[in-house]
Amino acid sequence: MEVSARNKLKGTVKKVLLGQVAAEVVMDVGGQEVVAVITRQSAQELNLKEGDSVYAVIKATDVMIGK
Amino acid sequence: MEVSARNKLKGTVKKVLLGQVAAEVVMDVGGQEVVAVITRQSAQELNLKEGDSVYAVIKATDVMIGK
Amino acid sequence: MEVSARNKLKGTVKKVLLGQVAAEVVMDVGGQEVVAVITRQSAQELNLKEGDSVYAVIKATDVMIGK
Amino acid sequence: MEVSARNKLKGTVKKVLLGQVAAEVVMDVGGQEVVAVITRQSAQELNLKEGDSVYAVIKATDVMIGK
Amino acid sequence: MEVSARNKLKGTVKKVLLGQVAAEVVMDVGGQEVVAVITRQSAQELNLKEGDSVYAVIKATDVMIGK
Amino acid sequence: MEVSARNKLKGTVKKVLLGQVAAEVVMDVGGQEVVAVITRQSAQELNLKEGDSVYAVIKATDVMIGK
Repeated sequence: MEVSARNKLKGTVKKVLLGQVAAEVVMDVGGQEVVAVITRQSAQELNLKEGDSVYAVIKATDVMIGK
Repeated sequence: MEVSARNKLKGTVKKVLLGQVAAEVVMDVGGQEVVAVITRQSAQELNLKEGDSVYAVIKATDVMIGK
Repeated sequence: MEVSARNKLKGTVKKVLLGQVAAEVVMDVGGQEVVAVITRQSAQELNLKEGDSVYAVIKATDVMIGK
Repeated sequence: MEVSARNKLKGTVKKVLLGQVAAEVVMDVGGQEVVAVITRQSAQELNLKEGDSVYAVIKATDVMIGK
Repeated sequence: MEVSARNKLKGTVKKVLLGQVAAEVVMDVGGQEVVAVITRQSAQELNLKEGDSVYAVIKATDVMIGK
Repeated sequence: MEVSARNKLKGTVKKVLLGQVAAEVVMDVGGQEVVAVITRQSAQELNLKEGDSVYAVIKATDVMIGK
């Protein structure tokens, strides 16, 4: 399945923090840190762990610009 | 002002497309393409143009993981 | 690629409206209407047209509850 | 009050998971599962429980398309 | 219908800009400007016009903090 | 750094609730309550506490209208 989100940034998982409902996933994307908050269940279903090759998937309307 | 968004990815503007209400901004971030949709007015107020050094600013709750 | 978004609702495209930057896609999901706004480019790259079988993909943190 | 969000999907609550800050609400919408993450306080104020008739309310700009 | 979004800020419409797909709505909320981008169709269905009493409705997970 | 988000609402922190992954921050903005959910780490890095002068920063595409 191809998803319409325009941003699919290749990276590596550095850290996974599981909460009761949410989970924080820290990735390295080309030398810059990218942090995602997804549900605990998603993190477990994707079996996310340090070293995994993943993509940070982000809808264009959720990206702001800083200058 | 420091903003709580966890993701501030340093990049360069490649292209700006102005619509009536929205604007699409394509950036290069460490060799990967990042696309933002912001309002036309924001793009004009930030005077965004090709070659600008910018940050892609993204709230962690808006980042998904693909594996 | 499996995406962490918890909501993948199977549906059929009913209408696609292309703007300069954005595109509105109206779908039928189990008899209820679901509307997405994605970028024009995404709509064209996915070659979306009436009758297509698609999924409405939605991050759980973007779903509110009305009661 | 009518809200501008284009997506109001009629469904039934199947499960409510309360965390310290967030709450996960699983619904059945026309035979498909829809998951929301809202704040714990919202879940309590709406007094959400299994069997409740509710709506999944989603802004169109938060819906992606998978094909 | 009560919606789980925690933020319902009472304000007045100052300006409505209709695009092909999106619409920008500028409001005054307690002396501060709040801008929404919704779909053109929503703006028309709500028959939004200058002077209308409205609420800016925002999910808590979409609010960042600047300090 | 100027951020493209169109909404920067000046307010004061009333309460901070830290969870394992998320944090809820309640603010007073011109006499109306605004609630943000950010990551625990952001709340700690910004050293948010009652009485702080802050801004509620919100992207226009995340604002709905209620009428």
